[in-house]
Amino acid sequence: MAIRAAVAGASGYAGGEVLRLLLAHPGVRIGALTGNSNAGQPLGALQPHLSPLADRVLEPTTTAALAGHDVVFLALPHGQSAAVAAELGDETLVVDCGADFRLTDAAQWERFYGSPHAGTWPYGLPELPGAREALRGTRRIAVPGCYPTAVSLALFPAYAAGLAEPEAVVVAASGTSGAGKAAKPHLLGSEVMGSMSPYGVGGGHRHTPEMIQNLSAVAGERVGVSFTPTLAPMPRGILATCSAKARPGVTAEALRAAYEKAFEGEPFVRLLPAGQWPATGAVLGSNTALVQAVLDEDASRIVVVSTIDNLTKGTAGGAVQSMNLALGLPEDLGLPATGVAP
Amino acid sequence: MAIRAAVAGASGYAGGEVLRLLLAHPGVRIGALTGNSNAGQPLGALQPHLSPLADRVLEPTTTAALAGHDVVFLALPHGQSAAVAAELGDETLVVDCGADFRLTDAAQWERFYGSPHAGTWPYGLPELPGAREALRGTRRIAVPGCYPTAVSLALFPAYAAGLAEPEAVVVAASGTSGAGKAAKPHLLGSEVMGSMSPYGVGGGHRHTPEMIQNLSAVAGERVGVSFTPTLAPMPRGILATCSAKARPGVTAEALRAAYEKAFEGEPFVRLLPAGQWPATGAVLGSNTALVQAVLDEDASRIVVVSTIDNLTKGTAGGAVQSMNLALGLPEDLGLPATGVAP
Amino acid sequence: MAIRAAVAGASGYAGGEVLRLLLAHPGVRIGALTGNSNAGQPLGALQPHLSPLADRVLEPTTTAALAGHDVVFLALPHGQSAAVAAELGDETLVVDCGADFRLTDAAQWERFYGSPHAGTWPYGLPELPGAREALRGTRRIAVPGCYPTAVSLALFPAYAAGLAEPEAVVVAASGTSGAGKAAKPHLLGSEVMGSMSPYGVGGGHRHTPEMIQNLSAVAGERVGVSFTPTLAPMPRGILATCSAKARPGVTAEALRAAYEKAFEGEPFVRLLPAGQWPATGAVLGSNTALVQAVLDEDASRIVVVSTIDNLTKGTAGGAVQSMNLALGLPEDLGLPATGVAP
Amino acid sequence: MAIRAAVAGASGYAGGEVLRLLLAHPGVRIGALTGNSNAGQPLGALQPHLSPLADRVLEPTTTAALAGHDVVFLALPHGQSAAVAAELGDETLVVDCGADFRLTDAAQWERFYGSPHAGTWPYGLPELPGAREALRGTRRIAVPGCYPTAVSLALFPAYAAGLAEPEAVVVAASGTSGAGKAAKPHLLGSEVMGSMSPYGVGGGHRHTPEMIQNLSAVAGERVGVSFTPTLAPMPRGILATCSAKARPGVTAEALRAAYEKAFEGEPFVRLLPAGQWPATGAVLGSNTALVQAVLDEDASRIVVVSTIDNLTKGTAGGAVQSMNLALGLPEDLGLPATGVAP
Repeated sequence: MAIRAAVAGASGYAGGEVLRLLLAHPGVRIGALTGNSNAGQPLGALQPHLSPLADRVLEPTTTAALAGHDVVFLALPHGQSAAVAAELGDETLVVDCGADFRLTDAAQWERFYGSPHAGTWPYGLPELPGAREALRGTRRIAVPGCYPTAVSLALFPAYAAGLAEPEAVVVAASGTSGAGKAAKPHLLGSEVMGSMSPYGVGGGHRHTPEMIQNLSAVAGERVGVSFTPTLAPMPRGILATCSAKARPGVTAEALRAAYEKAFEGEPFVRLLPAGQWPATGAVLGSNTALVQAVLDEDASRIVVVSTIDNLTKGTAGGAVQSMNLALGLPEDLGLPATGVAP
Repeated sequence: MAIRAAVAGASGYAGGEVLRLLLAHPGVRIGALTGNSNAGQPLGALQPHLSPLADRVLEPTTTAALAGHDVVFLALPHGQSAAVAAELGDETLVVDCGADFRLTDAAQWERFYGSPHAGTWPYGLPELPGAREALRGTRRIAVPGCYPTAVSLALFPAYAAGLAEPEAVVVAASGTSGAGKAAKPHLLGSEVMGSMSPYGVGGGHRHTPEMIQNLSAVAGERVGVSFTPTLAPMPRGILATCSAKARPGVTAEALRAAYEKAFEGEPFVRLLPAGQWPATGAVLGSNTALVQAVLDEDASRIVVVSTIDNLTKGTAGGAVQSMNLALGLPEDLGLPATGVAP
Repeated sequence: MAIRAAVAGASGYAGGEVLRLLLAHPGVRIGALTGNSNAGQPLGALQPHLSPLADRVLEPTTTAALAGHDVVFLALPHGQSAAVAAELGDETLVVDCGADFRLTDAAQWERFYGSPHAGTWPYGLPELPGAREALRGTRRIAVPGCYPTAVSLALFPAYAAGLAEPEAVVVAASGTSGAGKAAKPHLLGSEVMGSMSPYGVGGGHRHTPEMIQNLSAVAGERVGVSFTPTLAPMPRGILATCSAKARPGVTAEALRAAYEKAFEGEPFVRLLPAGQWPATGAVLGSNTALVQAVLDEDASRIVVVSTIDNLTKGTAGGAVQSMNLALGLPEDLGLPATGVAP
Repeated sequence: MAIRAAVAGASGYAGGEVLRLLLAHPGVRIGALTGNSNAGQPLGALQPHLSPLADRVLEPTTTAALAGHDVVFLALPHGQSAAVAAELGDETLVVDCGADFRLTDAAQWERFYGSPHAGTWPYGLPELPGAREALRGTRRIAVPGCYPTAVSLALFPAYAAGLAEPEAVVVAASGTSGAGKAAKPHLLGSEVMGSMSPYGVGGGHRHTPEMIQNLSAVAGERVGVSFTPTLAPMPRGILATCSAKARPGVTAEALRAAYEKAFEGEPFVRLLPAGQWPATGAVLGSNTALVQAVLDEDASRIVVVSTIDNLTKGTAGGAVQSMNLALGLPEDLGLPATGVAP
């Protein structure tokens, strides 16, 4: 008795990745695929890598098209999810890959997104303390941002164990798919190949309040985050380099123990053996996060590096993992733990 | 009752890709992993993308290690497979990812490989006329070369239908993983990023006689091939641009019809709709080949472009597809038809 | 007494490269810079690599802006050059980086470009037989297309020496800058990185008649060209793999001798030593073409590979080299013969 | 009366870049080129982008070969420069591109490099306070490390103006050429394309003490640096993201003013207009550093991003700029301020 899933926004990168994963999911049957500007086109013209769906035609994104499914994935521009979700009943599991329901603080939402706050849904990062429980049986899921996924996984163990001062510095490199499929000059291959550049420097990136929210909840106090995202010459992957002052007396052993404990039994987070550092290439196309942590004794800082595929664990994989939890399926069902490398 | 599979040469690119696919294969249990220079190391240090096998330790490549498996994949340097295979009994399916048993003509083997010919095994390209039948139930499989896979799929329909003159010109671009994992200066990232270069120009590449063998068998006459491989700045993928003079009277419709017929029902070859051309990015990590053919009326040439992932359809995917046939499993079992894009 | 040069279309890739070269040219002073949609913006916001001109503001492209210069470079969309050139007097050297004045055959122009033929100007590829003489003292220059530059340099020596049959097959890979700076989805970094794809297959590319024109003129008979361009994951560079049946009796020695003779004394073409093949990375940013030729005796074909930087030798470098000839300056003045590598 | 320059280590990336710049330098004539494992080979086989020197043959690195030049550039592995320099008299300008003479503190040298300290030479980063004066007329120059160049330029103005607390956090991405030309598996194109990874995390990178030395000298107190280098999928370029707590009361205006003052009149450092951020692609092949600074008021941190070409401004360009100062030539003579983009 297959789960019937619809995808709204099937022509974009997030929607395409949801479909790639659903095609490999043994419990799911793919239903309606919708788009707006691309409605009427076959998916094969827009997402040529999804060969088994090449002849499926995109419908306009309407409630009628999305109704009657067990799960609806929304891969829409920010601000459009609330209206669609409101028309889907509570019997439908709605998984929002956008930002609309991630933040708990309406003021932060309005400051960073410039529109009224739509509400808060259970947060689709099961590895965070308390998150997995909130996802079981839910009918609404807010999929985390890609950077907050990488950064929260990197730093929450240190804050959960009380090892780090509440001011974190994060510099993260992302592949260009994080910027979406809209054609903009600065995202042209000619501009990005062979080049790295920062953006949203100085606290302006919308993922900053989401990181602060996650880490503060774990720490039990406000954790400030200085966040600088950079665009890297690769299609996928996030490498997040995160650090914070170590609390007095923290040892390398205590740090390692905190991370081992935090990730014990997690199917999709792997703490690397000491001395090995993560590369984004190792998680390409997989739902795995790789993490390594070290104590810089000269600088008295905890330095943690995590890597994910921004479209998989950072978006569509986290979405499907959370869907599995919501529907009572094995959490790892149908999700790849292995990357495509080299 | 799972099939027990061993992989000899598990630390290289071909061996790693075999393992990635076997991990997703529902009928296979992974047994011994062997290497030579890397024996004793955990796989996680060598193939960090294969997280589920990270703690498995490589054994030396010996008959003892490989014995007792239902299937043994050999991903060894050319010339080493015959000795290993000879010690594995006929009850074991041996799948050779190397070149040793591909060529039927001992003189061609000796000319291009410089060593005595070891023999000829059923050829693991099921789409070629007659090949699928020869693979069913076999206990020995010669996995094709990556370039011959792409080129044979591109051109055999034209020759099978008698549409092309027997002199083909092929220029193919390959990702760098085709050159293997051995550290050589010209394969450094600094050298290959942002740069394209040819190699083996003028007929010297070892895959040339394999192409000639495949196309000649289909055409029923000797088909000459002028083959120029080029190294492209990407890790994976082959784009093969193939052409031949059209026989007199050939029409665009006849050409299209020949390709539709040749690929009808094939699970892993997709003839694109007219006007759409294949990109290697669409088949990354997948076992799918994308093909498009056109008649250049000004030049009186048939031009066919095909694309595959050299490590998947071009090596490990073709190997597993052929294994499925040999073992009587569904041909597409456990194999991804979707690529990882963007 | 510096030459005063204006650039129309200074915000695009061709215009930017003209400026990069002119900044290093000891005899030139840079005058007006014009654009259309970008008029009013500082060049530093559009071409941040041209630091010395960062504060210069783009003017609209008008005759008034361009008047009063010794040289005007036109880097405009196809079809716009004739009108601008008509208003610039004969005392001004007009160098057209577009296609408008390249073809001699009006019917071919109209077939491939779909607009009335504007005329034919001296062709800015000095290495072609007769071209250098026609450029000396001229006041109008048609800069060749990037692909025809690479392909003509690769094949003209073989045709000039009567070594090749008059049907050539060319497959060329180009960096993405050849497609310009207009934002189109298929040119996004996410789409092109890690991927190769063909376009304009089957004779439709506009550079095909230009290649045919050049090679036919040298051969003294019509030379057909089957041309397949491909897009490679790199910003710059063209690798052209060109071949043709060898005429009966052609030897490797005769082939080598023909190429040595053709390029003797050329400042910007280097025939590589036997056994060494060109890589696009070696000519990045330089005005040099690297060429290698070989006889494939099995296939009876001459195979020639050439590489250029599509923006330098393939556009702006060829333009400045031709300008030098037109103005009676040393042909290589101010032009880099060295590439930026790795 | 040209300056005669020799390059020891001409087959590596640093030596090759020195040669590329010297070929464009109007005052220099290139003399001996030496290598060790590559002695006897023509430069064209090793550095094919240096066409004008293709037929020059490498000599072994001996005092005899290097004697008799006005300038000797040493591009040798760490630890080999002292012996060579000792045999070159004081009339020869010796420019060491290696690390041997950069650090003033022998204990730091021994801790990070594991060999006895050879001494300290004038430091070839003219933009640092006091450095330009020390370079004029000197006969010994220690060229800075590539990361310290980018980081010191980014942060010294903040420390010179007393705006930042003495604990800096730096995450920098480098192109792969920074790792040199020795063939190592993790530097293969297959491994680095499409992937980012950190290394030397936690304070272990040898460039850390050099950054601390430079910033501490400017600040007048010890400045600690937490430094994480990452390897980016591009051949060249460094993007350094640097931050430090702002001192109480620091304003955005004061920050901007400090950077404007620090870089006033500098030929090779450009403070970008507010709102524009540097990309490594804009400085490819150029001696220019681009810098932008901002105050993150939420996090109370000064965030500065700088970008250089690691081989040009970060190595060979800094070397030639310093040579110009030492020899009394115009500081910018022969050095490109424009990058090769896209």
